[in-house]
Amino acid sequence: MSQYKHVALIGLGLLASSISLAMRRAGMKARITGTARSKATRDTALKLGLVDAVFDTAAEAVKGADLVILCVPVGVMGAIAEEIAPYLTEGCTVTDVGSVKRAVVEAVNPHMPDGVHFIPSHPMAGTEKSGPEAGFASLFDNRWCLMTPLESNDHATVERLKVFWGALGANVEMMEIDHHDLVASVISHTPHLIAYTMVGVADGMNRVAKTEVVNYSAAGFRDFTRIAASDPTMWRDVFLNNKDATLEVLGRFTEELLALQRAIRLGDGDFLFDYFTRTRDIRRSIIDAGQDTNAPDFGRNKEES
Amino acid sequence: MSQYKHVALIGLGLLASSISLAMRRAGMKARITGTARSKATRDTALKLGLVDAVFDTAAEAVKGADLVILCVPVGVMGAIAEEIAPYLTEGCTVTDVGSVKRAVVEAVNPHMPDGVHFIPSHPMAGTEKSGPEAGFASLFDNRWCLMTPLESNDHATVERLKVFWGALGANVEMMEIDHHDLVASVISHTPHLIAYTMVGVADGMNRVAKTEVVNYSAAGFRDFTRIAASDPTMWRDVFLNNKDATLEVLGRFTEELLALQRAIRLGDGDFLFDYFTRTRDIRRSIIDAGQDTNAPDFGRNKEES
Repeated sequence: MSQYKHVALIGLGLLASSISLAMRRAGMKARITGTARSKATRDTALKLGLVDAVFDTAAEAVKGADLVILCVPVGVMGAIAEEIAPYLTEGCTVTDVGSVKRAVVEAVNPHMPDGVHFIPSHPMAGTEKSGPEAGFASLFDNRWCLMTPLESNDHATVERLKVFWGALGANVEMMEIDHHDLVASVISHTPHLIAYTMVGVADGMNRVAKTEVVNYSAAGFRDFTRIAASDPTMWRDVFLNNKDATLEVLGRFTEELLALQRAIRLGDGDFLFDYFTRTRDIRRSIIDAGQDTNAPDFGRNKEES
Repeated sequence: MSQYKHVALIGLGLLASSISLAMRRAGMKARITGTARSKATRDTALKLGLVDAVFDTAAEAVKGADLVILCVPVGVMGAIAEEIAPYLTEGCTVTDVGSVKRAVVEAVNPHMPDGVHFIPSHPMAGTEKSGPEAGFASLFDNRWCLMTPLESNDHATVERLKVFWGALGANVEMMEIDHHDLVASVISHTPHLIAYTMVGVADGMNRVAKTEVVNYSAAGFRDFTRIAASDPTMWRDVFLNNKDATLEVLGRFTEELLALQRAIRLGDGDFLFDYFTRTRDIRRSIIDAGQDTNAPDFGRNKEES
């Protein structure tokens, strides 16, 4: 299956820069063009060699590309799609890295001309960093990339994109669009909202000094702050565009939390113990599936040495 | 200031085993005795060289010790204190590693004989592992140990214990007992409860397969499962014994979460964006304070290679 010859990256943040670095690591020779809204980002991407050429507009960046990857917040995907539509090459593939899929399909697909293949993707990898300097070549290694092909997509075109994500290091799975949005809400969107909330609560407690929150964060809170430091624009758009699934999962969450709160108030130790034992089993499964390390110190010594 | 000559570890889990390893790393020559409820744990601790001698009972283990460290769940501290009281050496120091301080003081202190110094401690370090094989010598390095001395404690005795925790690698701070319990609830207890809840929700969603939760956990959920894999007995006791602070912080949490939920339902993007921007600042402060790494990939490559 042939590799893409010209890849256009629309948006040059963490995801796009990691895609570029992973492409080069995989030995792909494709020409890489790109664009970003801010001149500073475009200049940085060019200086870092992430792109062979940058353009001021998405319309220019996609000219001649046989793969266009939309690496912008979910809320602006539709406007970008409308802008680039007249400039897309016949037969090219357009994909995206959005964390929400139904809203992106509805925003992007109506703009796509005949002969252009829009195939939604969601590479589930990231850090709390943003910007072109945040990328690294191994971001996708052993992470999952969910593709949610449309009925109109032909098999060979989907397979070609699947091979691309696989070459970047990802394990690729196909998923139905709405199911994707529910799964993403459970394992990513709602946990992010919860983390944001917990950090907001800590920040707002008058009786606890901010220095105390910061200094003593290692005891459970630190992982929350890492999650809650993610890009505000991206996450605003995720929640606004995955409203139904988020509200459903939040409803469940509040219900469960109130049950635990009640057990604490009533002193029902058995309820708490059983609940905490059940959640521990899930952790074991994740270790077994190779999605996290089992090192007793999580490798923190190495990180911080 | 003289080092302790004989340290008795009551309970031989993650904390006790790390204390032993950190003591030896610091070059302390003290005799270390210990006990644990299960014979298997006692045998393992002896085999690993964590203790010079193990005993079947806490009463035997503390005989002759000038420092006794209670490394058991908060809920059994009182019973242990009552058991060891008649066997404590005049002038010895008793401390603990409990995550809650008011309840421990109330459970332990009434049993302490005259001439014995009970000085509560809370080394804020841990992993989701438990048992004598989970310990490592660097667990306390650059972590905080909060001490909540009683009015009856004399300065020199408190300083001696402070030097001990410092030699194990910890930064030691003094804190008022009830303030400790509130701070601990904000930065540790409530985040743990939230993580347990979120993992419980994911586990209970019929429409999302457990394999999906496990496989795709890298996207935000994984850190929650790590927290939610912590020892169920320890955490049950924490919540039952820090009820007031936990209920207070949970009340704030629910209030904030409902405000965010409402913003999602109403499509109020500005509210979400402002909230997420504010929480990002706290993360920056934690990085600046040296309590986490700023590496773009969190050192995960190193962990998983």
